[in-house]
Amino acid sequence: MGDPAPGPWRPPDAHGVREEVEARLRSLLASRAPHRGVHEPTLPPDLLQVLAGYLFPGGKRLRPLLCVTGWRAAGGRGRPGELTACAAALEMFHTFTLLHDDVMDDSVLRRGRPTAHRALAALHPGRPDADRLGAGGAILLGDLALAWSDRLLRTAGLTARQLRAAGTVVDAMREATVCGQYADLVTAGVGAINERRAMAIARDKTAKYTVEGPLHLGAVLAGADTALLRHLSAFALPLGEAFQLCDDLYGVFGEPVRAGEAPLDDLRDGKCTLLTVLALRRAGPADRDRLLHLLGNRDLDDAGAAEARRLLEVTGARRLVEQRITELRERARAAVLHAALPPGTAAELVGWADHLTTTHRRPQREDDDQELPP
Amino acid sequence: MGDPAPGPWRPPDAHGVREEVEARLRSLLASRAPHRGVHEPTLPPDLLQVLAGYLFPGGKRLRPLLCVTGWRAAGGRGRPGELTACAAALEMFHTFTLLHDDVMDDSVLRRGRPTAHRALAALHPGRPDADRLGAGGAILLGDLALAWSDRLLRTAGLTARQLRAAGTVVDAMREATVCGQYADLVTAGVGAINERRAMAIARDKTAKYTVEGPLHLGAVLAGADTALLRHLSAFALPLGEAFQLCDDLYGVFGEPVRAGEAPLDDLRDGKCTLLTVLALRRAGPADRDRLLHLLGNRDLDDAGAAEARRLLEVTGARRLVEQRITELRERARAAVLHAALPPGTAAELVGWADHLTTTHRRPQREDDDQELPP
Repeated sequence: MGDPAPGPWRPPDAHGVREEVEARLRSLLASRAPHRGVHEPTLPPDLLQVLAGYLFPGGKRLRPLLCVTGWRAAGGRGRPGELTACAAALEMFHTFTLLHDDVMDDSVLRRGRPTAHRALAALHPGRPDADRLGAGGAILLGDLALAWSDRLLRTAGLTARQLRAAGTVVDAMREATVCGQYADLVTAGVGAINERRAMAIARDKTAKYTVEGPLHLGAVLAGADTALLRHLSAFALPLGEAFQLCDDLYGVFGEPVRAGEAPLDDLRDGKCTLLTVLALRRAGPADRDRLLHLLGNRDLDDAGAAEARRLLEVTGARRLVEQRITELRERARAAVLHAALPPGTAAELVGWADHLTTTHRRPQREDDDQELPP
Repeated sequence: MGDPAPGPWRPPDAHGVREEVEARLRSLLASRAPHRGVHEPTLPPDLLQVLAGYLFPGGKRLRPLLCVTGWRAAGGRGRPGELTACAAALEMFHTFTLLHDDVMDDSVLRRGRPTAHRALAALHPGRPDADRLGAGGAILLGDLALAWSDRLLRTAGLTARQLRAAGTVVDAMREATVCGQYADLVTAGVGAINERRAMAIARDKTAKYTVEGPLHLGAVLAGADTALLRHLSAFALPLGEAFQLCDDLYGVFGEPVRAGEAPLDDLRDGKCTLLTVLALRRAGPADRDRLLHLLGNRDLDDAGAAEARRLLEVTGARRLVEQRITELRERARAAVLHAALPPGTAAELVGWADHLTTTHRRPQREDDDQELPP
């Protein structure tokens, strides 16, 4: 295993993978478009349009790309159509989680556009129950995305063995996501969870479905054995946790979403993250009270946010989280050393480890619509 | 084909099917119980308990029973474990729809107990965001039920051919349910949809996943060809529509849920059904205005409900819906005559046609926890 190539790293043939995944997703949506048969129900065009808005503004396709890496890690060659369909299923699963998360958090914007429930509510401007319709529509659209993720996988043309192995991977991914999201939901605003619990949430809600699941899925398609899956987990879980910590930092300290607008949502939501847990533990009584007042305050303004950021800095919480990111990345890199991998794959995994944990620029946020660096 | 046997009909070996399905569901839940492994996420016990409350107060298991009928209609014998697992998957799918419907409609009770989102909200009595937590938890629990429905099917031990055919059936069922629910949601309170649209909603939201999907699923497991599936649809769709019309009537005119409490929810929700569509079309201007005022009024009281019921009667809408139920049932019965079915199956289907469309007593409501008549 060598060091990663100098200069900005990108996954091998990222452009090709993205194009193929997008084509697969577009062909599914086209095949389900309205008026496709007399006896089939007509899928509401409203819903399809909102779904396309979540799928196609050019996401990074991190999960599909990691799936292809997993395939190669297990000795897979080329990029057969089955692999692309499974990679597309991961992107559709990701879209399902975004749709339901946005409803649960009542988020306003996703990739700079109105979230699904807001967009659907806006279709009924005169109705007093417009918000309820929007939320209901977004829940149903998420359900459809989950069903279609399954459909993509099931119709990928896998062998019975591949389908069985892939099923085990997606079952684990789905359960972890539900567990992580529920824990995230009920601990928000609670203030006093411990560090271990904060990291378990990061692992369940992000690491499993963003890094481990995709690597495993690609790997089992290529016939990976249990030993390789364990090695990949030893790489994926710390890396996925580090990715979530970067996202947490970015949500508080990142560049403004628009000129002059510092990020506020994460502070307003009061999500329990390692960052807030450490800050609350290390703050003196007065700072602690102040932080508890500021975090999760839905009316937080720029001045309040600046004060919260300052407290997260002076308590040393930010620095400790950055340290933890470095440790987790090193743990992920070390795990690569212990796996017997095809030539090139070790370097590819190390590339991912650095790529997903870059904190000095905008991280590869899960809801980011920017292209990977050229 | 003979007439149905005199006396109350019940599906063959309903008790045995219910017991096996329940055992399969219980074994899935037990296998996913908390603390099952160090590296697996801990499924929140709150969620599992609420899920069990939806699954196990002894539902009628209409969909599993219809699945077994479909199996027999295609010449299947006995009741292999694969069939039971698929039947259980249908019940889990039904539970998924109930969980998300209850959130979307903000229903208070399900089978006489608090709905999932209410029960989960009640776990956080001191928190101002308890309702949001409850709704979020119920959305996630529905997601889990959908994922587990898929898991039950995928791990049923089907052959590759069976799995492919079953996948086509569940894909159609899932899409129809989303379409029907969305149409139901956006037309509620609108007042003026036409008859055709009202029936399309009944077909998509109920007939497809309650009657057609289960029959098809059982049938394809036994190797049904396209011709048989078409015959079963010709039976299932009118019957499923009639079943929904019975449910609509029951929701307005049914016996009190508790002594002295007439059913109010359906009137308050203002759902567009054939009943309301016909009443609005046939009413004179004054009655029409009055009905539009009463239907969908969230504060409707007993006197208002009595007035609405009177208007639904005097416009002739109730009678016309009852007539339509009879017509649809006859159409379903006639469809049986045109299918080449194994001995006994025709009578079984006719039994279902009568069983699911009995309007003079409590119909087999989808959310009913009573046993089938002995």
